[in-house]
Amino acid sequence: MSNLQHDLNASFVPLPSYKRPFPSDTLAGQSRDAEKRQRRSKSPDLPKAISPPPGALETPKSPGTKSGNEIPAPQKTAETPVSFSRPTFLQLSPGGLRRADDHVGRAVQSPPDTGRRLPWSTGYAEVINAGKSRHNEDQACCEVVYVESRRSITGVSREPSHNQGFSFYYWGLFDGHAGGGAAEMASRLLHRHIREQLKDLVEILQDPLPPPLCLPSTPGTPGVSSPSQLVSPQSWSPQKEVTHDSLVVGAIENAFQLMDEQMARERRGHLVEGGCCALVVVYLLGKMYVANAGDSRAIIVRNGEIIPMSREFTPETERQRLQLLGFLKPELLGSEFTHLEFPRRVQPKELGQRMLYRDQNMTGWAYKKIELEDLRFPLVCGEGKKARVMATIGVTRGLGDHNLKVCSSTLPIKPFLSCFPEVRVYDLTQYEHCPDDVLVLGTDGLWDVTNDSEVAATVDRVLSTYEPNDPSRYTALAQALVLGARGIPRDRGWRLPNNKLGSGDDISVFVIPLGGPGSSYS
Amino acid sequence: MSNLQHDLNASFVPLPSYKRPFPSDTLAGQSRDAEKRQRRSKSPDLPKAISPPPGALETPKSPGTKSGNEIPAPQKTAETPVSFSRPTFLQLSPGGLRRADDHVGRAVQSPPDTGRRLPWSTGYAEVINAGKSRHNEDQACCEVVYVESRRSITGVSREPSHNQGFSFYYWGLFDGHAGGGAAEMASRLLHRHIREQLKDLVEILQDPLPPPLCLPSTPGTPGVSSPSQLVSPQSWSPQKEVTHDSLVVGAIENAFQLMDEQMARERRGHLVEGGCCALVVVYLLGKMYVANAGDSRAIIVRNGEIIPMSREFTPETERQRLQLLGFLKPELLGSEFTHLEFPRRVQPKELGQRMLYRDQNMTGWAYKKIELEDLRFPLVCGEGKKARVMATIGVTRGLGDHNLKVCSSTLPIKPFLSCFPEVRVYDLTQYEHCPDDVLVLGTDGLWDVTNDSEVAATVDRVLSTYEPNDPSRYTALAQALVLGARGIPRDRGWRLPNNKLGSGDDISVFVIPLGGPGSSYS
Repeated sequence: MSNLQHDLNASFVPLPSYKRPFPSDTLAGQSRDAEKRQRRSKSPDLPKAISPPPGALETPKSPGTKSGNEIPAPQKTAETPVSFSRPTFLQLSPGGLRRADDHVGRAVQSPPDTGRRLPWSTGYAEVINAGKSRHNEDQACCEVVYVESRRSITGVSREPSHNQGFSFYYWGLFDGHAGGGAAEMASRLLHRHIREQLKDLVEILQDPLPPPLCLPSTPGTPGVSSPSQLVSPQSWSPQKEVTHDSLVVGAIENAFQLMDEQMARERRGHLVEGGCCALVVVYLLGKMYVANAGDSRAIIVRNGEIIPMSREFTPETERQRLQLLGFLKPELLGSEFTHLEFPRRVQPKELGQRMLYRDQNMTGWAYKKIELEDLRFPLVCGEGKKARVMATIGVTRGLGDHNLKVCSSTLPIKPFLSCFPEVRVYDLTQYEHCPDDVLVLGTDGLWDVTNDSEVAATVDRVLSTYEPNDPSRYTALAQALVLGARGIPRDRGWRLPNNKLGSGDDISVFVIPLGGPGSSYS
Repeated sequence: MSNLQHDLNASFVPLPSYKRPFPSDTLAGQSRDAEKRQRRSKSPDLPKAISPPPGALETPKSPGTKSGNEIPAPQKTAETPVSFSRPTFLQLSPGGLRRADDHVGRAVQSPPDTGRRLPWSTGYAEVINAGKSRHNEDQACCEVVYVESRRSITGVSREPSHNQGFSFYYWGLFDGHAGGGAAEMASRLLHRHIREQLKDLVEILQDPLPPPLCLPSTPGTPGVSSPSQLVSPQSWSPQKEVTHDSLVVGAIENAFQLMDEQMARERRGHLVEGGCCALVVVYLLGKMYVANAGDSRAIIVRNGEIIPMSREFTPETERQRLQLLGFLKPELLGSEFTHLEFPRRVQPKELGQRMLYRDQNMTGWAYKKIELEDLRFPLVCGEGKKARVMATIGVTRGLGDHNLKVCSSTLPIKPFLSCFPEVRVYDLTQYEHCPDDVLVLGTDGLWDVTNDSEVAATVDRVLSTYEPNDPSRYTALAQALVLGARGIPRDRGWRLPNNKLGSGDDISVFVIPLGGPGSSYS
C-alpha cells in the first residue's frame, strides 16, 4: 500500500505484507486493508479509562430530567493516557483487556455471562486482528436511550401522554481505519446525536396523524402543543405525504452528518484520528431502522430465509458517484488523477493507442484513444477488496477521515467520502417472529471470509442446540460466527476448516433476537 | 402547466386541461404531460415522405459493401413539407395516414397482415392521443441491421470467418415531447449509431477470448488481426475482467450519446424539435440488450412470471441525482430555483418557521428553519405523473431537448437531463422459451393506465386464443394491449371497462416473441 501511496505513477501492486507474528507468505489474505494501517504509528489514541465500571449500560432516564442540546466530546478521564479501549459492556478487567489486545491468542470476547445482559438479550462477540494494527479498531455500542421531548421542557402541552418521551434501543458497530479515534468517538456519541434529532419528534411520532409539514419557529417555543394543530390547514397546494418512518430516517441521516461535523471540529485537538464505518440499528415504536455507511453488513435470518438489511459502499459500488464528482469538480482531482476508469494502468508508451474505459455515465466499456491526461492515476482503481479511491481508501462512506490525504500530496480525500448512511426499515409487527429469527450485524472481518448463506446455516446450527428460552444462545451464536471467521492457528496462519485463510481483520458481531426474549421489550 | 411555467412564484397547481374534442371535466387524467405540448405550435416538423414504399425494411447488406462512418441527417425527400410521419413498417397509404392521425376515431394501427411481417414475427400496435398534441409524437423502429467490421475493410485478416460481420435485431420506441422531431430523428438514426459503435467489435465479440484491453491506434489499421494477439501479454499489472456483454452495453451507451450530440448539432437548422424518451432492444449473439432512457417500460412475461427489463427515469426516481447536480453546480439553478425539496411550496409568511425538507443526501425528511433562499421554486416538485424538473419536464432521461428552457427564463434544462440509458441484459440461451414467452415494450401511454400484472394477464388471455405457430398472434396481442389502455368512447371520454379514464396519450406497443417463430433467427 505504501508503494501505491508514494508513487502514484506506479501501476497497481498487491498490498505489501505487514510485519506480524506469522510468516508473511501465508498471510497475504490477512493484509488487505492498508488504509487501516495508514499513519498508525503517529496516531495518538484517545485517553480512556481501561476498565469501565460493571453495569455501565445506559439506563432510561426518567422524564423531566434536564437535558441540554450539546453533545459532549469524549471525556479525558485518566491523567496518564491509556492507549486503547474496548466496549464498556464487555466489562473487562485490566487482565481481560490485555487478553483482548493479544494478536497471538486472539481470544474471542463477549460480555460476561455472570453480569448484566445486553438489552434484548443481544449476543455479542469480537476478536482482535492478526497483527494488521496494534489495537482492535472495531468498536461497538448497545444501549437503551431515553428521548425526552424538547417541547415538554417548556411545560406547555395539552396531551401530556405524548410528552412522556420514549426509549429507543440502539446497536452500533464501528470499524475504524487509520487509527481508532473516530470509531471510539462514534461508539460513544452517535446515539446521543440520534437522541438529539429525535427530541423534536417525540409528540409527532406518537401521534397517529400525519406529521405537520411546518412547525412554528424554534424548538421549545411555548404555545406549541398537539402536532395535529400544526398541520397546515391550507389545501390550496398539493403536498407530499411524509410518513413517520421517513422522519426517523431523516433524524438518523442528520445525526450521522452532525457526528461527522463534530469529528471535523475536534480533529485539530487530536481527539479524533482516522475514520470509521458505521452500522447502526435503532429500534423505535415497532420498527427496526438499519443504517449503514461503509462495508459492514446486516442481514435478517428469518425462518431460514435471508433478508439483506444493508449494502456495502465501496469504490466499486459507488464508482459512478465518485466519477461524477471528479468530473463535475475536477479541482478535487488535482493534476494527479483522472476520473476515467481503465481496466489497468495506462502506460506512457500506449499513448495514441485505444484502450477500454468507462466514464461516470457508463456501466459498459468502450475503447478510447489514449491521451496525455489518461496517464494520470485513476480516481477509482483496483478490484474487490483491493479497490481504492485515490489509491488510498477502500470504503466510500463513513465518519471521520477529515485529515485523510493522498500520500505525497496535499489532495484531500474526504470530499469523495459520504457520511450519509443508507437506512432500511423493517417492521417487526408485520411478522410473528420465533426465537430463532435474528438480525446479524458484522464488520467486514466477518463477511470477508463468509457469506449470507453460511451465516444463516450457522444461525440454524447453533440456535438449535440451545433451548429457545435460553438467553445465552445469542451470545453463543455471535461467538460461533466470530470463531468461524477467525479460524484456528494452523500451518503458520489462521485457518478455516476448509484450510483457507481465516480473517486477519478485527471481527465484531451482534446477534439481535427478533422474536426471542427481546420481543417483550417492544 | 402554463401557470407553473410562467409564474415560478406560484404554488404547485394541477395541470390545466387542454382544448380537445371532449369536455375537459371528464378528461383531466388525459392531460398529464404538459411538456409534450410545450411549444407545439411553433414546432416545425421534419419533412418526410407520407407513405414509404411497402417492404421498406432494412435488409442485411452483404459483407464487403462499402460503408462510411457518417450518420446521415434525416433526408429532405419532399419539396413541400409534410407535417408528420408514422413508422415506415406500417406501410400507410395517404388515407391510412389520415386515419392514424384522427384524434376522434383513434383507430389502432398495426402493420398490414398482407404485407411483409416484422422481423421475428414481432407484434406492433399504436394509437394517437386524444387531442393533447396535433400528431402522434411516439415513433417506432424495427430493423435487422448488418454490422460490417471496420477492420475487414482493410482486407487484412487471418480469421476470415470473424470478419464476415453479424446482424443484430433492433426494436425502438421513441416517445416525443415538445414536438415530434427528436423522436422521428431517433427512430431513423439511433440504430445506425449503434451499428457504427459495433463495427469495431465485430471480431472481438465473435472471439471467445477475453476482449483485448488495448488496441493499436485507430480503427482499420492494417496489421491488426486476431484479437487474441491484442491481449496485453504483460501480467505485471492486475487488470479488470471486461466481458463481451459489457462491450455491447458500452456501444449502446455511446450510441445514445452520439445520437444526442447529433441532435444538438442539427437543432439550429430546426431539423430537430423537442426531445424523446428512448426504449431500445438489441438482440445480438444470443442476448437481448434492453436500453431505456425515459419513462417507457419493458417487461418479459415468461411462463406467467414477470421479469422487469427496465426502470423509469423521472424527477422522483432521479431526485437525488438532480439535487446533487444543483448543489454542486448552483449556477445551473439561476436565482430562481433551490436544490432543496419541500413537501409543498414554501410561503413568504412562513419565513423563520421550520418546514420539512430533503437535500441531495437524504431519503428521509427533517425540519429546517425557512430562510429566504428556500422561497425559491424547488428544482424537483410535484408527485407521480405531475412531478417536474424546474416546473417543466416530467422525464429526466432521453434524447434531444437541447433548446428546452424554463419558461420566462433563459435557464436551460438540458444540463439536468441525461441521455444515457440503463441497459439490462437477458440471455435467451439460458432458458427454453415457449411461444407464449414475450418481451413487451410500451410507451407511458400504456403503463399510465395498466400495470405489469394486468399486461401479463392480457398476454395469457390473448395468446391462448391463437395457435402457437400463428405468427399474427403477437400483433393481435399488441392491439389488445393498446385497445385495453385506450378504452372506448363513452360518457364523454375514453373509458376502460372499469369506467376509469383510458389513456389520452399516444400509446405504442411492441410484442417480441422469445420462443416463437423468432427463435429460428437466433
